[in-house]
Amino acid sequence: MRLENDQRRAQLLALARTAFSARAYDDVSIDDLARDAKISKGLLYHYFPTKRVLYVAGLSAIAAELVVAVTSIPADLAPIERARAGLDAYLEHITRHRAAFISLMRGGIGSDPEVAEVIEGVRRRMFDTFVVDSPFAPLLIGNPKFEISVRGWIGFVEFTTIDWCVNPRLSRAEIRDLLTEILFEVLRVVSPPVFRTQ
Amino acid sequence: MRLENDQRRAQLLALARTAFSARAYDDVSIDDLARDAKISKGLLYHYFPTKRVLYVAGLSAIAAELVVAVTSIPADLAPIERARAGLDAYLEHITRHRAAFISLMRGGIGSDPEVAEVIEGVRRRMFDTFVVDSPFAPLLIGNPKFEISVRGWIGFVEFTTIDWCVNPRLSRAEIRDLLTEILFEVLRVVSPPVFRTQ
Repeated sequence: MRLENDQRRAQLLALARTAFSARAYDDVSIDDLARDAKISKGLLYHYFPTKRVLYVAGLSAIAAELVVAVTSIPADLAPIERARAGLDAYLEHITRHRAAFISLMRGGIGSDPEVAEVIEGVRRRMFDTFVVDSPFAPLLIGNPKFEISVRGWIGFVEFTTIDWCVNPRLSRAEIRDLLTEILFEVLRVVSPPVFRTQ
Repeated sequence: MRLENDQRRAQLLALARTAFSARAYDDVSIDDLARDAKISKGLLYHYFPTKRVLYVAGLSAIAAELVVAVTSIPADLAPIERARAGLDAYLEHITRHRAAFISLMRGGIGSDPEVAEVIEGVRRRMFDTFVVDSPFAPLLIGNPKFEISVRGWIGFVEFTTIDWCVNPRLSRAEIRDLLTEILFEVLRVVSPPVFRTQ
């Protein structure tokens, strides 16, 4: 019986993941989800008491995937290649979930406290990837200018990629190369002078 | 009687402006505001039917002030001096409204659609200041890399300054100089090669 519960929950989560990654929050209907799962709306609400709870669960699954994609770049790549590969993974992910990404970042659901915490969790993992896991880490951790600037660069990435999703005036390669170039300029600006000659 | 209405509305707006700029949204009480205005809560709701409506009105007034401060930098300053002065005005403004700024950008109220529209309006005016009103405008308008990057830089500014308000590890001059330097690096990266020699 326990297993059955878990399977039902996993099935609903998978359906929600698909629905919420293809469509904006407001365009997903609980009636449709229940119909797709071939269960009653009441039973669906037994597993996920509100649409928001189901959304947060689905979003958390998608966010975990994004973090895995961006952070599992081989560590032996050159820093610039790691950055490019991480950005490729990120751009691939948001392109695949385009409508959901725009809805999340621009729509009313984005600052629901639990949803905001999922987004903030992704930012923190991105930050760690570019700071803690960076080959420059030993020299840069604890440097407030550096830490603030990496945070700023994440803001740069979010703003440009939301704009790019809404109005794709650059190719994916162009936006990736732009973001990579900006990252390395930012790193150059905030790095101790010893790095500036590299 | 009409004038009296307008005066009452202006008085309430001024009280709301002060309350919402000193405290987070959830910490402002309509009871306190009505008491300060020496009117009943019912009469207050006659002018502003909900706390959110009053907040949006107060926020719009504060946002308009910010836009005026940032965009009224003398046009005859050198571009880097204009950027520094604009950032000084911005940093002065958010420092003065620190609790409200953090609540707005991080809290639940930030993505209420009307509130989000006020924030987006400020970003658009900032964008215009750095694009349309820029001395580089004739060469840069219509260049998508440039337009996207200015948008990205605004994201950089928002992320770093929220972080700075919460955890001020740099002085105001340091954060201003960092943001200015990043802006000019961004401009350099996206400018036609003719600018790169400047």
